[in-house]
Amino acid sequence: MNEELLAAYEETKSLGLKLNMARGKPGSDQLELSSEILGVLENPVAEDGTDCCNYGVLDGLPEAKRLMAIMLDDDPENVFVGGNASLTLMYDTIARFHSFGSLGSTPWCTLEAVKWICPVPGYDRHVAITEAFGYEMIPVTMNENGPDMDEVERLAASDASVKGIWCVPKYSNPSGITYSDETVRRLAQMECAANDFRIVWDNAYCIHHLYDDPSQQDAVIDIAAACKEAGNPNRYVKFASTSKVTLPGAGVSAFAASPENMDEARMRIGVQAIGHDKLNQLRHVRFLRDEKGLAAHMAKHAAILRPKFELVLSKLEEGLGHVEGCTWTAPRGGYFISLDVPEGCARRTVELCKDAGVVLTGAGATWPYGNDPKDSNIRIAPTLPPLGELDQAMDVLVLCVKLAAAEKGLLA
Amino acid sequence: MNEELLAAYEETKSLGLKLNMARGKPGSDQLELSSEILGVLENPVAEDGTDCCNYGVLDGLPEAKRLMAIMLDDDPENVFVGGNASLTLMYDTIARFHSFGSLGSTPWCTLEAVKWICPVPGYDRHVAITEAFGYEMIPVTMNENGPDMDEVERLAASDASVKGIWCVPKYSNPSGITYSDETVRRLAQMECAANDFRIVWDNAYCIHHLYDDPSQQDAVIDIAAACKEAGNPNRYVKFASTSKVTLPGAGVSAFAASPENMDEARMRIGVQAIGHDKLNQLRHVRFLRDEKGLAAHMAKHAAILRPKFELVLSKLEEGLGHVEGCTWTAPRGGYFISLDVPEGCARRTVELCKDAGVVLTGAGATWPYGNDPKDSNIRIAPTLPPLGELDQAMDVLVLCVKLAAAEKGLLA
Repeated sequence: MNEELLAAYEETKSLGLKLNMARGKPGSDQLELSSEILGVLENPVAEDGTDCCNYGVLDGLPEAKRLMAIMLDDDPENVFVGGNASLTLMYDTIARFHSFGSLGSTPWCTLEAVKWICPVPGYDRHVAITEAFGYEMIPVTMNENGPDMDEVERLAASDASVKGIWCVPKYSNPSGITYSDETVRRLAQMECAANDFRIVWDNAYCIHHLYDDPSQQDAVIDIAAACKEAGNPNRYVKFASTSKVTLPGAGVSAFAASPENMDEARMRIGVQAIGHDKLNQLRHVRFLRDEKGLAAHMAKHAAILRPKFELVLSKLEEGLGHVEGCTWTAPRGGYFISLDVPEGCARRTVELCKDAGVVLTGAGATWPYGNDPKDSNIRIAPTLPPLGELDQAMDVLVLCVKLAAAEKGLLA
Repeated sequence: MNEELLAAYEETKSLGLKLNMARGKPGSDQLELSSEILGVLENPVAEDGTDCCNYGVLDGLPEAKRLMAIMLDDDPENVFVGGNASLTLMYDTIARFHSFGSLGSTPWCTLEAVKWICPVPGYDRHVAITEAFGYEMIPVTMNENGPDMDEVERLAASDASVKGIWCVPKYSNPSGITYSDETVRRLAQMECAANDFRIVWDNAYCIHHLYDDPSQQDAVIDIAAACKEAGNPNRYVKFASTSKVTLPGAGVSAFAASPENMDEARMRIGVQAIGHDKLNQLRHVRFLRDEKGLAAHMAKHAAILRPKFELVLSKLEEGLGHVEGCTWTAPRGGYFISLDVPEGCARRTVELCKDAGVVLTGAGATWPYGNDPKDSNIRIAPTLPPLGELDQAMDVLVLCVKLAAAEKGLLA
């Protein structure tokens, strides 16, 4: 068996492939869906008469707030529209808490220790932020309803230095899991030893369904409403962006927060900026229009992405369905599929793939400090390669998983 | 005299004017100079083949670095191209020093005290940043060659908690003064008690001349070269933006730093962002092209702004030339004229103007904490109003200065 796999691997290597499944990048056909957005500014004046070419409007054009409020499932007055990346808004949010505290709390930079709950597997760029600020990151296992809430509740209640949690509530990165209503309510209601505990609610895939039929789409209840109802109205900050709606290279980001949190954020951001790119806000409003326009546009993305996800799932089933220790998720939206390979085989698989010309997200990247203790999780990002290349890349991945398992004597 | 002034003031008030000279905003005719920039992206691919619609390129497209290197007077490899505002880049730079220190120094947020040198009059948004971080701001008087260097040297050498200085080296905001070569060299050479002392070099008006004839343009020597020569290669960070070149609502910002500072900045910003708006970078490159294109474009701005500055100066000369205690600057570039009125009259003048329908920058705004101890400095921002409105607004301003002085018995 090992011989056969090795032969197949050498043959694959000889093909000189150059395939990349490392990052959740849209494919070029997806980018073309938005090409018209570059030419919609004949009259760069907002609905209230603002000349979008000039300075001003710190928190976003009214019509841009309305648009982003749809994605954020909130009222436009609770929305702040930012620049190109919600990642920057998230970093800035934590940087503000770090330097200034939140609603009168002690600035986190002056505390002995700050700890942060990191659902695993999770998004590598999230944990990079909390790592940069020197916070102690505590991994909590994701299950099919979101993070293990017994553990989250225990951590939040028992230690005032636990200041927050990263959440991708819908079509989570990388597992594709969507938080259950109970998970959202428990996050909103739980006792927190820190009165400035914050849920960073990165709803990156809020409208990124793979299927048009609503019965095949995931829904997540609104964290803002849940927090308000639970009497913890300032516990969350919600984020979204058009990076994977229009153009990742020139999108619009936004966050929503409670009136108190928003007042404070606006006051502090007013020192940092005069206003974000209003012309790009206007482009997005004119191109996407409203809820219906957004849904119609996302249906076009789904038509491109659905066959890619279905191909990955069928390749996994066909190639690894009978390999012990291999499991994966089957998301109904988002950008990723999470693959667990036999323990101790993830790094080796990624290495074998790389040597055969297929670049995957680094093994361990889905864990704080890049340290997956079981060395088993691999994030599959199927969106960038065209379908034909994805087909090849998945064959290589399946082969390399088997080879890595065989090397360890784990292949039955 | 007082009677006559009062009568004139009441008459002016009855006109119901609505004029604004508060901020350094370009006029709508200046914005029209760049209207073509909105339509130059038929092929949104960079010279190295990068699809600017997709993710990536943290520190800027190569051609955008080249363009901004012209404004920053530096090599493209020392340039980082950011988003819409250099203000945000400056805030972020200080925020990084605050949270992480610089090149191994102690993070400023953990220090007992941080002090900052603020040349006065200065830019209100600069001092708002150092105020937000809780730094003690020390005003140092600007003279015709830049800040009083004897005082700056004394402060920097004597106290390790003095961590930096705000500088607008050319056509300074609001005085229009340009730093002399000696000032720049002394800043680069001076002994600093803090080894992480930083010169924040906001070269906002680097190419913003009012006159095309080079003999009528100010020049400032490069702080990077001066610091390197002085053996203090990491002392500065330089900033510039196209806000007042193309569109303030959708410009491109950039900073330049020593290789060591840049490596650290890139590493830290890599946690905050995946890449700034590359399409807007490409628009700027295609619209402005190169040094010649930049100069030709700025000459068009100068043609619009020159008559405005000349009008303000002639109105001041005519109306206040014989009023004791009134002095003003006559800049050859930039966006502002700095007016000193008799002591104790600035706030009252601004108030009188406001009641007569002319909005000026708040008195005191050019000082740390908004506190001008002599209450005498007023920043005139003549760029936004059309020439006819500016004419009216200056008449009101002159009248109100006289009235405020008369109220105090200071008018001869």
